[in-house]
Amino acid sequence: MFTFDAALSTAVQANDQPQPAPPQNATGPLSPELLSQVDRFWKAANYLSVGQIYLRDNALLREPLTVEQIKPRLLGHWGTSAGQNFIYAHLNRLIQQTRASIIYISGPGHGGPTLNACAYLEGCYTDVHPDITQDEAGMRLLFRSFSTPGGIPSHCGPHTPNSMHEGGELGYALVHAFGAAFDNPSLIVACVIGDGEAETCPLEGSWKGIEFLNPVRDGAVLPILHLNGYKISGPTVLARTPDEELRALFTGRGYEPYFVEGDDPALVHQSMADALNHCCAGIRAIQQAARSGHPGQQKPWPMLILRTPKGWSGPKEIDGVPVEGTFRAHQVPLAGVRENPEHLKMLEAWMHSYHPETLFDSDGHPAADITALVPEGDLRMSASPHVNGGRLLKTLDLPDFAHYALAVPAPGEVIAEAPRKLGEYLRDVLRQNTQNFRVFCPDETNSNRLNAVFEATDRCSMRPTVSIDDHISPDGRVMEVLSEHLCEGWLEGYILTGRHGMWTSYEAFAQVVDSMITQHAKWLEQCREFPWRRPIASLNVLLSSHAWRNDHNGFSHQAPGFVDNVLQRRSEIVRIYYPPDSNCLLNVFDHCLRSRNYINVVTCGKQPEFEWLTFEQALAHCSQGASVWDFATNDGGTEPDVVLACVGDVPTLEVCATSWLLQKHVPGIKLRVVNIVDLNALMSPDAHPHGMDNITFNQLFTRERPVIFAFHGYPHIIHSMVHGRSSEARFHVRGFQDYGTTTTPFDMVVLNKMSRFHLAIDALKYVPRLRSQVSDVIDFFQAKLHEHYVYIRQNFEDMPEIRNWHWTADFIQPDAPPQLAKGQPRAAAFTDA
Amino acid sequence: MFTFDAALSTAVQANDQPQPAPPQNATGPLSPELLSQVDRFWKAANYLSVGQIYLRDNALLREPLTVEQIKPRLLGHWGTSAGQNFIYAHLNRLIQQTRASIIYISGPGHGGPTLNACAYLEGCYTDVHPDITQDEAGMRLLFRSFSTPGGIPSHCGPHTPNSMHEGGELGYALVHAFGAAFDNPSLIVACVIGDGEAETCPLEGSWKGIEFLNPVRDGAVLPILHLNGYKISGPTVLARTPDEELRALFTGRGYEPYFVEGDDPALVHQSMADALNHCCAGIRAIQQAARSGHPGQQKPWPMLILRTPKGWSGPKEIDGVPVEGTFRAHQVPLAGVRENPEHLKMLEAWMHSYHPETLFDSDGHPAADITALVPEGDLRMSASPHVNGGRLLKTLDLPDFAHYALAVPAPGEVIAEAPRKLGEYLRDVLRQNTQNFRVFCPDETNSNRLNAVFEATDRCSMRPTVSIDDHISPDGRVMEVLSEHLCEGWLEGYILTGRHGMWTSYEAFAQVVDSMITQHAKWLEQCREFPWRRPIASLNVLLSSHAWRNDHNGFSHQAPGFVDNVLQRRSEIVRIYYPPDSNCLLNVFDHCLRSRNYINVVTCGKQPEFEWLTFEQALAHCSQGASVWDFATNDGGTEPDVVLACVGDVPTLEVCATSWLLQKHVPGIKLRVVNIVDLNALMSPDAHPHGMDNITFNQLFTRERPVIFAFHGYPHIIHSMVHGRSSEARFHVRGFQDYGTTTTPFDMVVLNKMSRFHLAIDALKYVPRLRSQVSDVIDFFQAKLHEHYVYIRQNFEDMPEIRNWHWTADFIQPDAPPQLAKGQPRAAAFTDA
Repeated sequence: MFTFDAALSTAVQANDQPQPAPPQNATGPLSPELLSQVDRFWKAANYLSVGQIYLRDNALLREPLTVEQIKPRLLGHWGTSAGQNFIYAHLNRLIQQTRASIIYISGPGHGGPTLNACAYLEGCYTDVHPDITQDEAGMRLLFRSFSTPGGIPSHCGPHTPNSMHEGGELGYALVHAFGAAFDNPSLIVACVIGDGEAETCPLEGSWKGIEFLNPVRDGAVLPILHLNGYKISGPTVLARTPDEELRALFTGRGYEPYFVEGDDPALVHQSMADALNHCCAGIRAIQQAARSGHPGQQKPWPMLILRTPKGWSGPKEIDGVPVEGTFRAHQVPLAGVRENPEHLKMLEAWMHSYHPETLFDSDGHPAADITALVPEGDLRMSASPHVNGGRLLKTLDLPDFAHYALAVPAPGEVIAEAPRKLGEYLRDVLRQNTQNFRVFCPDETNSNRLNAVFEATDRCSMRPTVSIDDHISPDGRVMEVLSEHLCEGWLEGYILTGRHGMWTSYEAFAQVVDSMITQHAKWLEQCREFPWRRPIASLNVLLSSHAWRNDHNGFSHQAPGFVDNVLQRRSEIVRIYYPPDSNCLLNVFDHCLRSRNYINVVTCGKQPEFEWLTFEQALAHCSQGASVWDFATNDGGTEPDVVLACVGDVPTLEVCATSWLLQKHVPGIKLRVVNIVDLNALMSPDAHPHGMDNITFNQLFTRERPVIFAFHGYPHIIHSMVHGRSSEARFHVRGFQDYGTTTTPFDMVVLNKMSRFHLAIDALKYVPRLRSQVSDVIDFFQAKLHEHYVYIRQNFEDMPEIRNWHWTADFIQPDAPPQLAKGQPRAAAFTDA
Repeated sequence: MFTFDAALSTAVQANDQPQPAPPQNATGPLSPELLSQVDRFWKAANYLSVGQIYLRDNALLREPLTVEQIKPRLLGHWGTSAGQNFIYAHLNRLIQQTRASIIYISGPGHGGPTLNACAYLEGCYTDVHPDITQDEAGMRLLFRSFSTPGGIPSHCGPHTPNSMHEGGELGYALVHAFGAAFDNPSLIVACVIGDGEAETCPLEGSWKGIEFLNPVRDGAVLPILHLNGYKISGPTVLARTPDEELRALFTGRGYEPYFVEGDDPALVHQSMADALNHCCAGIRAIQQAARSGHPGQQKPWPMLILRTPKGWSGPKEIDGVPVEGTFRAHQVPLAGVRENPEHLKMLEAWMHSYHPETLFDSDGHPAADITALVPEGDLRMSASPHVNGGRLLKTLDLPDFAHYALAVPAPGEVIAEAPRKLGEYLRDVLRQNTQNFRVFCPDETNSNRLNAVFEATDRCSMRPTVSIDDHISPDGRVMEVLSEHLCEGWLEGYILTGRHGMWTSYEAFAQVVDSMITQHAKWLEQCREFPWRRPIASLNVLLSSHAWRNDHNGFSHQAPGFVDNVLQRRSEIVRIYYPPDSNCLLNVFDHCLRSRNYINVVTCGKQPEFEWLTFEQALAHCSQGASVWDFATNDGGTEPDVVLACVGDVPTLEVCATSWLLQKHVPGIKLRVVNIVDLNALMSPDAHPHGMDNITFNQLFTRERPVIFAFHGYPHIIHSMVHGRSSEARFHVRGFQDYGTTTTPFDMVVLNKMSRFHLAIDALKYVPRLRSQVSDVIDFFQAKLHEHYVYIRQNFEDMPEIRNWHWTADFIQPDAPPQLAKGQPRAAAFTDA
């Protein structure tokens, strides 16, 4: 028996020795026929995997292999392939015998050859790629397309019909698996985790998914930890961990590990089949107990630990150096076949060792006993609708969002926490969609003012609760775990399998999953090339507790850059919104929940702020994406002296206050306030589907007038978006910069030079027509800034004229122009409030 | 005895019952005197913590508390404070009795009050903030500064002398702890991990640090998992996990957990002291065994699991609702003290319960028995040089980088993998600095062509090795773990404690740690305000396997956005380099290793590419940051028709080839090639210290001529950098976009419209002077693009004229202008090579 300790001491020697003959009577659950079927499916998949890496012709090796038939660049990864083909073959056997609904997630890097090969054997690859037929010609095309220009990648991209998980960036297999299993009570997600991937932090954090998996309503995740020993060059931590430590580790994580180890296929086939039977039975036992009212039986959940050699069944040794079972099998074990005739011979021998002539018939179609292992119809893992979630997508039953409108009698007369109304709306979304909508959040649902959702549901936890707990139950549909990785990753898995949801986060810490968003975006981008990949729900992100109002938290909590990364993705799938108040937030979010295949990022504060628009006004504003706010504009439709533009709730407040201040103190000034709720509207139509054409753009911003632009995020975003517009140098952007921390709202805008006083001074600088008459006003505003600085550091809050300011129309009343008497202390000279 | 199960069932009731009288004879290692000292240090720290949250006056409660003495905004987090103060007091006792060198890492969120309070009691707070004196006036200022404008944050910011870990974003306590312990053989890093933080993936992944901790050469990490039960609103996973599961989990991770549980201080003091003694002895036993040649004794390492109530010693109940021990104690338990006189009274009673009049003398100085618990001098955790690493920083002994110069007889005559020479340089850096320099890498050191380092050292692993392993040993100084989080986090911990290092990564997956980089940058930015925070080594990042040459990997591996995020940090600490070849890479990296307090990001491919500059030329070029490349320029110092600018190795190749093509095919065209190695040089001097003034900028780029700009990253970066320069609209940027995947070098640049043919066509479009004479040339270049497309998809490699192209001066020879005969197949019309 192959064991870990023996392996450590004999790994090298084993490579030199001939394989023991397969025992005649390897005992186990597989009949000789079934054993043969599984083994031959495995060999066929292995053959197809090797073929993808090397061949551009002579797919069935009907003639001696020549250099010309080898691809000029050898790309791909053999190391993980044979082990994964082995697992796949065995899962097919399990499905055949149990009719279980199973999907396969390929965690190890570069698992493309495996899933391509298996989908090809199952016929599904041909279903979705009709040119890749199940014959010699199709096989040749499959081989030629792998890792070649215009072809398919070495990962399980969207082209692979049996995957909803790409895995190019390692670490997210298990979190996706749990997301897929939620609310899929009859599904088993077989999740293969490579021992390299297992070292990533997201993967390590994902094991605790079972703490949130409810066997009554959810499906099962079957983790299959594949220990093949090495990463690219070094040994993996888990492969060098003795079995008893592994057992303790996974027991502590709530799993019961079944070990399958070995390098003799006949033996490993039987023990793998045995272990899978036990795992499947264990899953069913937990589910049956839970579903018949005995939730105490929940844990441990079964898992499988499979130790097989890296590059199993490949060359044992090349040029006297061990390869199979070592890191040298990671990518292309015989890399020099084009230059070294000896290596070419070895490749040929390796491929012939699978006896392709017995695996495929004379046309190149897989042999009957191999296809006999393929499950029926949608039970094939490559045909499961769960990995092409759009096939299962049900449109959400959404309440009429007009019901949640906030009454806004006049602009700036009401103060509210914008997400509260959204919370009520989401409460009813949860009530009306009890099986396919969830909210994912790192423990901030209350903090982000979405409390109302707890009138409809609870936080989910499988652990015992105590009476002091607040809305915790195994049935909760709010998934709170203090991990952005898990929240976002679960949501990905959930929507990729055809459901809906949202993730809400503190703005700064959304960046924790920058790279996960990048990968999900790339998946969506590539899906556009495959119409059979049906549209899925958008990934909806609500960022609150944002950079401008982090009163509790300070500098570390101020980083609005999540949007920057999203904006680098292809515009077809990116939508960025900055609703300035409650009614706009409601409008935007309702739209997001109805949309498909996007990444929607909605940024909106949770602190009490002014409400500007009625529901109807918000509807019109949001449908345009950007519009002139008439109440704060006084240019009468003519060219203003200056345009004040704003994106985001705090910038909008400051811009409105700036307009108010300027109209009050600079009689005759002509201003226009433009608010942008849909950031992408600023782009050109070439660059984004929401982009404004130049006519509309110039109608909003004029052709030449200076624009003082107050932006929620980093200023460069706006500079880059207005690049190419008429007189782009006239856009003077104020945005967030890393300038330290504070705890009062006004202080934040001061530090970032975006306060109403700064903006007003900026505006006046760019209005030469008025320059001579406004120098006193500028002095006055500067005095105000100083007054504020002193006040706030003495009193720890904004001065009353800021704290109590609200929009009024009284500046139209004649008012004495500001006068700053010479020699008088500037701070005390003037009071607005 | 307080136990988990009892706690679950009695948590609510316990809140209602009076505390049991402290047992007269609580047995344990603490003498009555020591018990009293520890307890009183704890109470004093608790008092100071509450004071920071609430008071702006009446710091010692010498008069009845009034509303006016309460801050207008109550910010801060009580929930974690008492537990951490408890741990801190006990560590002081341990240091006193063992003279161990210990530092404290505060993992739980918002741990600021604790470390401020403890550093204040130790006198170090006053040492670094002389206005915060150890008397009533200083205490008042400490209270006033906490979470107020212009004051200190609620985290352990750089202002806190006893921390090298801020913790505003949760998850990095333990990875920083291991980084601090590496190569610090006499140090114990006490790492307090909150049960909220413990749910993050980075924290879960960090436990495996011990697999890389060598007790011979490294110090120890003592994890103290603080289970206080709740996050913001919900229970934590680990707090609801029974002890036996916790024991299995941590045993599996290689630790031996010591449990300390309770809410009766007298009892918990004794068991805490006992557990700390055991942990300390356990650490010493492992170290002693290892250092005397018995490495078999390495594991398990001790750890401590402390279960105490959230908000311990705070209000048990408010308005009939339990608070202590619940999520309601998370932030400010009595939030309405300004409005509710009853609550004000409760606050007063709470603070008086610590008997401040006995903890501080009549001047407000801590009582003698409390300061007697404070260790001596640098043994104080707040005075340890390890948390102010610059105090320990030794300049690296660097070899003369000229020794590693690559001979470049002429531009483009040599092809090399740029990192190889750097690898040789780093090999010797490792040889010359055997105790304070490490390389951190997610298993890609070889892949990134730095192989030569293994001539000097190994990969580090504490597990048994086998003969087939490649350069693995416990003494290895290359830290390879498949986790960007761990690599970057270890490096942070390592340099924050005064050492040097580098992290090398695939470019795309550097984004995995976007948010970690943001947090480290914010730490460095804030350190600039505290001159006593001595400069530390820069965080050096080498990105290879970049977006343009991901031949093995495809679309998921293409994402150059790491730099985007870094660029949003304050320019004082950000340096971005794109060396175009080996000699420039060497120059840049040597500079990085000498620099302080920066984040240096160096992006350079690993594939064979042309070498352009000799060592001396590279030296001059890198010191300028950007310069005209004369060999590819033919404007004779006059105004060129068009400027070709390039940043990054692949863009440089394409731009040089473009210049070559244009000079060959468009006689009379005047071109200038500008290469930028220091990206920040493009910025204005206002925006970055390396920024060029307008005179220099215009000397390079002219004032008005069109600039075709080939950039390695996303184009918007350049647009934003040239904003405000002369005629900014003339910059036509080509960069990376999410346009799919490929496997040949030339195909990548074609897909992203940055190939030599694209750039040449672009250039000609912007040269109206020549437009009439070049329409055939444009047709020709377009035909070439088509020819390439066909060729590459048939042959899976670039066409020979691309593959074999290299820089020559032969285009100056008279040559027939390109002629494209009408009706002839465009692809076959012309051959350059």
